[in-house]
Amino acid sequence: MENNKPLILISNDDGVISKGISALIRFLRPLGDIVVMAPDAPRSGVGCGVSINEPVMFQMIRKDVGLSVYKCSGTPVDCIKLAFYTVLDRQPDIIIGGINHGDNSSVNVHYSGTMGAVIEGAIRGIPSVAFSLCDHDADADFDPAGPYIRDIVEKVLERGLPLNTCLNVNFPNVKELKGVRICEQAKGIWINEWESFAHRGDSQFFWMAGEYKNTDPENENSDRWALENGYVAITPTLVDMTARELMNDLKSWF
Amino acid sequence: MENNKPLILISNDDGVISKGISALIRFLRPLGDIVVMAPDAPRSGVGCGVSINEPVMFQMIRKDVGLSVYKCSGTPVDCIKLAFYTVLDRQPDIIIGGINHGDNSSVNVHYSGTMGAVIEGAIRGIPSVAFSLCDHDADADFDPAGPYIRDIVEKVLERGLPLNTCLNVNFPNVKELKGVRICEQAKGIWINEWESFAHRGDSQFFWMAGEYKNTDPENENSDRWALENGYVAITPTLVDMTARELMNDLKSWF
Repeated sequence: MENNKPLILISNDDGVISKGISALIRFLRPLGDIVVMAPDAPRSGVGCGVSINEPVMFQMIRKDVGLSVYKCSGTPVDCIKLAFYTVLDRQPDIIIGGINHGDNSSVNVHYSGTMGAVIEGAIRGIPSVAFSLCDHDADADFDPAGPYIRDIVEKVLERGLPLNTCLNVNFPNVKELKGVRICEQAKGIWINEWESFAHRGDSQFFWMAGEYKNTDPENENSDRWALENGYVAITPTLVDMTARELMNDLKSWF
Repeated sequence: MENNKPLILISNDDGVISKGISALIRFLRPLGDIVVMAPDAPRSGVGCGVSINEPVMFQMIRKDVGLSVYKCSGTPVDCIKLAFYTVLDRQPDIIIGGINHGDNSSVNVHYSGTMGAVIEGAIRGIPSVAFSLCDHDADADFDPAGPYIRDIVEKVLERGLPLNTCLNVNFPNVKELKGVRICEQAKGIWINEWESFAHRGDSQFFWMAGEYKNTDPENENSDRWALENGYVAITPTLVDMTARELMNDLKSWF
C-alpha cells in the first residue's frame, strides 16, 4: 500500500534532544510522516557550514509509526545532505528547521544553523521553512507558536514556494501573538561581541557574547519591528544573493 | 605622524599558512597597511559560522613594516569580529577574503568561509571583497590573478561599495584571463555528496565529496558561465536575502 502522506524532513541546530525540536515534532505529526536528522549536540551559529575536514556519522535513536529520528555528528546542513543520501526513501515534501531556541531574524539569518538547514533545502528545490522563538531558554514555551506553525506548514504543503526561496519565521517571546506579518530582513549588527579571560595566566581567550543592535529601528516592514511589536515575522528568503541593482554600475568600472 | 595609508584587513578559510593568503598579501602590500587575522588551520566550508560553544584565541605570528599577521583558533567570521575587538586601532578601509583555493561561485557562496568573512565585513559596513581561484591545489598558481586583484581593490578603495553589499570574485584556473564579467549567482546543486566507509567494522562514516552540477548552464550572465569561458567573474552579493518579489503573494496567504 503506497503511502500518500506528506513526508516532512526536520533538522535544527540546538541538537536532537532540544525542547524546540520535540515541540516541532509534536505540532507536525498530524500533518504527515516525519524524518528527523539533527545534530547530536548543540551546533548553534554554524550557519551553512559543512564538515569538509572530518567524517560524519549518524544513528537511529527512535522509530515509531510515521516517525524516524536520527542523530548526526555533523552540522545542520550535513544533516540535510546526509538524510537525502541515506535514510530518505523518497523526496521530502517539505523541510523544516527548528524550533530554534533564539531569534534568527535580521542578519542572524547568516549565522544560524537552523537557517542553514533550510537554505540547503531551498538549494535542493524543496519548500523549506525555519521556525525560531526569541527565547534562548532550554525550557522555553513553544506552545503559543504551535497553531501558527501548523497553519504555515499546511499552507506551504498546499501551495509550495518558488524555487530557491525559503521562509524564515520568527516568534516573539509573548503569550498572546498578534498575528502574522510578512517582513523584510532588518538591518542590524552585533556589538560588544566578546568577553575575554585569562586561562592559566598565559594567554587570552575570548567567548562570544554581544548584543544585537537594530540599525533600522523605524522600519515597520522589518522582521525585528514585527517581533518587537508582538507579531509573528515571516521573512521570505532567497538563495540567490546577487546584488542585481549594482550590476550595471559595476560594469562601468571595467 | 598620522598614517594615511589605507588599512586592509585580510582573512581566509584555508588558514594563515596557505599559499593563497600569502599571494594576496604580496599583491596588496603596495596598496596599504595590512592586518591579517586568519584561521590557524583549514576551515573550508564553515560559511558564516561563528564559535558559540567554545572560546577562541589568537596570536601574532609576524610583524613587519605595514604588516601584522595573526592566527586565530576560530572561524573566518570569528577572525573578522575578533580583529575589530582586539588588534585594529582604526576602522579598516577594506576587508578582503582569500585568495581561496577553490571555486566560491554559485551556491558555494553559502558554504564558503572566505565569503563568510566578507559577508561579515559587509554587515559591519566596510567595503569587502572575496577572491577565489578555481583550483584546490595547495600549490595553485595565483599569479595570473594578481593584476586583476590589485585593480579591483584599488577601485573599491577609491569608489566604495553600497552598504550591505560585497563582491564575490572568482578566477578560472587558466593562464590567460579574458577579462572581467559582472555576473549573477548561477543556479546549481551538489550531487553524489558522500563517500561512506566502515571504521572498525561497527559503524558507517561519511566523508563529504561530490560534484557541482550547474542547473542553469545556458545562462551567460552567471558566474559559472564566465568561469567556464575564461573570464574573471565578479558577483555583487547582498547581505539582505529578502525575497521581495514574494512578499505580496505571501500577504494574501494570511
